[in-house]
Amino acid sequence: MTNTTRELANFIAELSYDDLPKEVISRCEDLFLDWLASALAGKDYAPIPLFERYAERMGPAEGGSEILTSRQRTSPYFAAFVNAAASHVVEQDDLHNSSVLHPATVVFPAALATAQAEGRSGRDLILAVVAGYEAGIRIGECLGRSHYTIFHTTGTVGTLAAAVAVGKLLQFSSDDFVHALGSAGTQAAGLWEFLRDGADSKQLHTAKAAADGLLAAYMTADGLTGAQRIFDGQQGMAAGMSSDADPGKLSDRLGTRWALTETSFKFHASCRHTHPAADALQQLMNEQGLNYDDIDGVVTYVHQAAIDVLGAVVEPRTVHQAKFSMGTVLGLIAVHGNAGLEEFQKYALQDPEVAKFRSRVSMRLDQEVNEAYPIKWFGKVEVTTHSGKGFHKLVRDPKGDPENSLTRSEIESKFERLVAFSGALTREETRQLINSAWQLHDAERVGYLLSAKRN
Amino acid sequence: MTNTTRELANFIAELSYDDLPKEVISRCEDLFLDWLASALAGKDYAPIPLFERYAERMGPAEGGSEILTSRQRTSPYFAAFVNAAASHVVEQDDLHNSSVLHPATVVFPAALATAQAEGRSGRDLILAVVAGYEAGIRIGECLGRSHYTIFHTTGTVGTLAAAVAVGKLLQFSSDDFVHALGSAGTQAAGLWEFLRDGADSKQLHTAKAAADGLLAAYMTADGLTGAQRIFDGQQGMAAGMSSDADPGKLSDRLGTRWALTETSFKFHASCRHTHPAADALQQLMNEQGLNYDDIDGVVTYVHQAAIDVLGAVVEPRTVHQAKFSMGTVLGLIAVHGNAGLEEFQKYALQDPEVAKFRSRVSMRLDQEVNEAYPIKWFGKVEVTTHSGKGFHKLVRDPKGDPENSLTRSEIESKFERLVAFSGALTREETRQLINSAWQLHDAERVGYLLSAKRN
Repeated sequence: MTNTTRELANFIAELSYDDLPKEVISRCEDLFLDWLASALAGKDYAPIPLFERYAERMGPAEGGSEILTSRQRTSPYFAAFVNAAASHVVEQDDLHNSSVLHPATVVFPAALATAQAEGRSGRDLILAVVAGYEAGIRIGECLGRSHYTIFHTTGTVGTLAAAVAVGKLLQFSSDDFVHALGSAGTQAAGLWEFLRDGADSKQLHTAKAAADGLLAAYMTADGLTGAQRIFDGQQGMAAGMSSDADPGKLSDRLGTRWALTETSFKFHASCRHTHPAADALQQLMNEQGLNYDDIDGVVTYVHQAAIDVLGAVVEPRTVHQAKFSMGTVLGLIAVHGNAGLEEFQKYALQDPEVAKFRSRVSMRLDQEVNEAYPIKWFGKVEVTTHSGKGFHKLVRDPKGDPENSLTRSEIESKFERLVAFSGALTREETRQLINSAWQLHDAERVGYLLSAKRN
Repeated sequence: MTNTTRELANFIAELSYDDLPKEVISRCEDLFLDWLASALAGKDYAPIPLFERYAERMGPAEGGSEILTSRQRTSPYFAAFVNAAASHVVEQDDLHNSSVLHPATVVFPAALATAQAEGRSGRDLILAVVAGYEAGIRIGECLGRSHYTIFHTTGTVGTLAAAVAVGKLLQFSSDDFVHALGSAGTQAAGLWEFLRDGADSKQLHTAKAAADGLLAAYMTADGLTGAQRIFDGQQGMAAGMSSDADPGKLSDRLGTRWALTETSFKFHASCRHTHPAADALQQLMNEQGLNYDDIDGVVTYVHQAAIDVLGAVVEPRTVHQAKFSMGTVLGLIAVHGNAGLEEFQKYALQDPEVAKFRSRVSMRLDQEVNEAYPIKWFGKVEVTTHSGKGFHKLVRDPKGDPENSLTRSEIESKFERLVAFSGALTREETRQLINSAWQLHDAERVGYLLSAKRN
């Protein structure tokens, strides 16, 4: 049996900054700013203050790493913990399609906290993040679609992705990476059950993934050993948490395929499974000149995972839960033209027109869409009007997908919109952080972004 | 569908100290001293210093809770983390048969750290520990035998047991407990794969279970919400991590059955799956007057879980791995008359006679033994001598099982032996801690056990 875990470990151990194509470096900076936008948008957003409070209570009041929302310093463990919770709560962080992993929200918090504490450069941070993405995405693909039906991949696989990023900053050998993957994999957790109740576990999953991955890497650096075949061993992750795992994916085109460039930026402030249909409805309404009150019914033709994740939400009780309601997202698009943070906050629960529209939306499993998934996320809708007309729309590359990505200027606008939403930054700071992101590859030290005193 | 999660939550919320039968209180004190023995025996034992170092690096240097091995103060999270790792490393902590859960090593660290930080009494601690045991054991039984084939139940279920114990100290309502179980269950992790390599994950599992359970409870106290049906929900623990779960077990005879009194004390310093056969061999050799060099072969007739866990170890490379080698344990019993901490340290890897004996031991699945498991752990061996004779022995209640338990004086001796092994205590401290345990029900404050300054 080929040991693809070892192949992956060899690749990430040997990877150097000079190996990275220019577009990978540049995309990594895009993702950094996009991640900062999400992390800062989470300031004061429930339940993030609970994570800040926990870090204050259990962690040190000083340290080498920075909590972005509260501007407090603490140890890398708690900085990763809070920043990872914060960057996943407004549902605007990036997503990788075929692994169904949100890499930024777990990789950046762990890598940034470590880079700050260890005094590393912008290039070190970029290299670590690329390693985390390349490993994490392949691990998510390895665990397959069955894993995602029960487990929140960003929680489980995120732990390993974070461990790899931190390990790269700690200059791990291939052996070290194998141990760290073992220690991270045996901590991997996160169940979708919370979604049915609109509970707060989604942020707990990312917080724990980033922090526990960091723990695995730091303890490996000190000598902790881990299982050597955490993926394909008889009692490893595939055996316990998947029925269609493919360990061959772990070493898929290492060094020629750059999985980091395949992630999608989120345009709508909702679960990514709603985006393709949202785009399709928006385009259809524009093309046909339809108003929301012309529409009698919308059938969205979706892949099975969309039903698994969104099916749990019938009538949303919280704004966060509304982000997982296909009907609400389409209602916001139809009635208010947009499903951004502001629209969710103002209209998702309160607007009777949105509620009425929600009741007219249904999901149906579609063979074409399901077969394309998870490589492609098609948006396919059928709209019936009150006057009895019927329209179809198929969108193959929803906005934000690699084939239909955001420009730097669009990413800057998104950043400005998100930090304005939470009031996390002054205008001057907003400009500064944008510049820091675009200059990351030149920074001798990553340093502190907001708690400037000891910069 | 009956909601047995709610029944369990109601029971633990309403449970008061006055509800506890005398023998439960007294057994809880037995278990406390037995747990302290294991925790202190872990001092300086690899990989425990790595956990101490991690707590120093990531946690606060001051705090309300005590790390027993290093006598340092820190926050409850890191005290629970280190003490739980330490109390599982010498493989002498208690075990509950039918749930295959080691409750003490996850419940006591979380409860002690919280009781110290919150200034609670001995009775509060006892009540919290009982709640943790009653819930944890039933949850382990609920997840069934299939769970244990891949997952280390003490790591997974231990997270929930710890959360319940801490929640009881934080005076949770039934609703609070349901949320805390949700937040703990969605963090539950721990795979057996590490065993194949003799890696350090077993202690990582208990450390994380105790600390993450504590996290779930403290964050619930602040308002974090969790899944309402973490066990039997469509995307909950049973769906993802078991194929024979029985949610009815969660509420099994609440208030009349005291599961805490059903745990087994460990006599031999090895995996509990080796104990029944070790007892059977020891008794057979005594009864027949056999010497180890009379013996040509030993067949141990075992339950399937013994093969799942011990089968991974063929030739042990570390002392800890040797504790999971049936042949090594029986070799120590046969050649040295005992399989205690001292014998493992001196002979498990070095003694050629033990190695020779190991090669003569095999395991075979046995229907009678397998059917009795996990309620009863039978020891059944067949010994063949060089002179061609054959002997059988069946032990129904191995030493330490509830039907063949340890007296207080035997528990004291075990405590003295274990703390002498690591040199964790002076003689005076040894005496003091024994007295503290027997007086626990009278202590107005649990206080600090070793870092006495601010007692």
